[in-house]
Amino acid sequence: MPRFKITIEYDGTGLVGWQRQDNGPSVQAALEKAAAAITGQRYDVLIQGAGRTDAGVHALGQVAHFDLQQDFDPYRMPLAFNAHLPDAIRVTDAEQVDDDFHARFHATARAYRYRILNRRVASAIERGFVWHIHHPLDRDAMQAAADRLIGSHDFSTFRATHCQALSPVKTLDVLRIEDEPQGLAVIAEARSFLHHQIRNITGTLVQVGLGKWTADDVSDALAAKSRAAGGPTAPPDGLYLTSVSYDGVPEEKD
Amino acid sequence: MPRFKITIEYDGTGLVGWQRQDNGPSVQAALEKAAAAITGQRYDVLIQGAGRTDAGVHALGQVAHFDLQQDFDPYRMPLAFNAHLPDAIRVTDAEQVDDDFHARFHATARAYRYRILNRRVASAIERGFVWHIHHPLDRDAMQAAADRLIGSHDFSTFRATHCQALSPVKTLDVLRIEDEPQGLAVIAEARSFLHHQIRNITGTLVQVGLGKWTADDVSDALAAKSRAAGGPTAPPDGLYLTSVSYDGVPEEKD
Repeated sequence: MPRFKITIEYDGTGLVGWQRQDNGPSVQAALEKAAAAITGQRYDVLIQGAGRTDAGVHALGQVAHFDLQQDFDPYRMPLAFNAHLPDAIRVTDAEQVDDDFHARFHATARAYRYRILNRRVASAIERGFVWHIHHPLDRDAMQAAADRLIGSHDFSTFRATHCQALSPVKTLDVLRIEDEPQGLAVIAEARSFLHHQIRNITGTLVQVGLGKWTADDVSDALAAKSRAAGGPTAPPDGLYLTSVSYDGVPEEKD
Repeated sequence: MPRFKITIEYDGTGLVGWQRQDNGPSVQAALEKAAAAITGQRYDVLIQGAGRTDAGVHALGQVAHFDLQQDFDPYRMPLAFNAHLPDAIRVTDAEQVDDDFHARFHATARAYRYRILNRRVASAIERGFVWHIHHPLDRDAMQAAADRLIGSHDFSTFRATHCQALSPVKTLDVLRIEDEPQGLAVIAEARSFLHHQIRNITGTLVQVGLGKWTADDVSDALAAKSRAAGGPTAPPDGLYLTSVSYDGVPEEKD
């Protein structure tokens, strides 16, 4: 039973998200169907992802693992999968890994990028791939507020009400505002995140960028430990899971 | 009769190109319909573009001009147009110009970018926005071959057979290969181009990048002054009209 690790890129626009669901196409179901096809439909394959992205959220470097009941050349694997996947989902890399490798529980860092187009007019080219904010954003004010959120905190204020994590305490290692040609991006890195954490943080930082909130308001919101104290949830369009890292330390379970 | 100059961005994927045609949606027809709407449908507006992009070709900075029979605040104009345009077409800028300004004949430079994704696997995110070449391209070899095409030449080898220009002689001011994160781009600048000139040049430079052609082969092809001597036509997907410049010198007519 060899175990494989694959890296996946997807356009989340028309998808219900990573996780298999009854109400529409998911990345997981598409990959499992493709995996069954490459085994010649001889058995089902369970594919386990590093993180469950929501509907409309994109990935450049999602990671998943699965077992096959046969040997398979990892070099051939991406093209074998892609022959059976919709164009919006591509396996970009594959390797054989140890039998105990776990894409979710062994991940030591997850990196996301939230892209904001900041100009008067929406994009004709990047529809569905950026959040369009037409009033000018103050990047330095956003970074100063972001600095208040770095580190270990109870992030209840930025947690979706239906989040299933056991604890609201997470450690945010990176929260950086980067310039982009016609806007900016919020870069977030942590071992793991709460549900909607990045979209809720981004929605709040945009309030700061617009001059409606101060960095102190963000600190107060964090201290309130209540979703009602946080800013709005940013739409899924601008969010990308950019990479998942593994360095051998098992992930905290959530 | 005030004259206006507008800058337009579009996703060419679902369009038949810039020019009004019977067989599908064009940028020109969409803009003219929107212009009639903002005049309250009181009269028709003829919109003249700087360049006719083909079906599937994108624009970040197409330019056009037109006359209105009424005053209009240029600051309000992009949003007024966009309220009546499909999402794939956005007016990004507008200004009032002299009555003799002509978007096509007064253009002194046009700049294009042709984007190539150069990795094993196609893109899930940028489908329709890059040309995917899965074998590795030799960027330096491509630049050396590109250098043979810079300057004034008879470009018959790189001209579509149905091109309507009076002369095949054009002056290519810039032909530069730039690195992109997972590939490269061909940057081309000239006062004006022949039909398919950039796509034919790019298709030929890719043959060089793949090691199938040498720079000398490209020189020989140029000297042959025959489309049959050139390389294949690159698909429209990777091509963007990035900007059109005006510095008061009237354009050569073609």
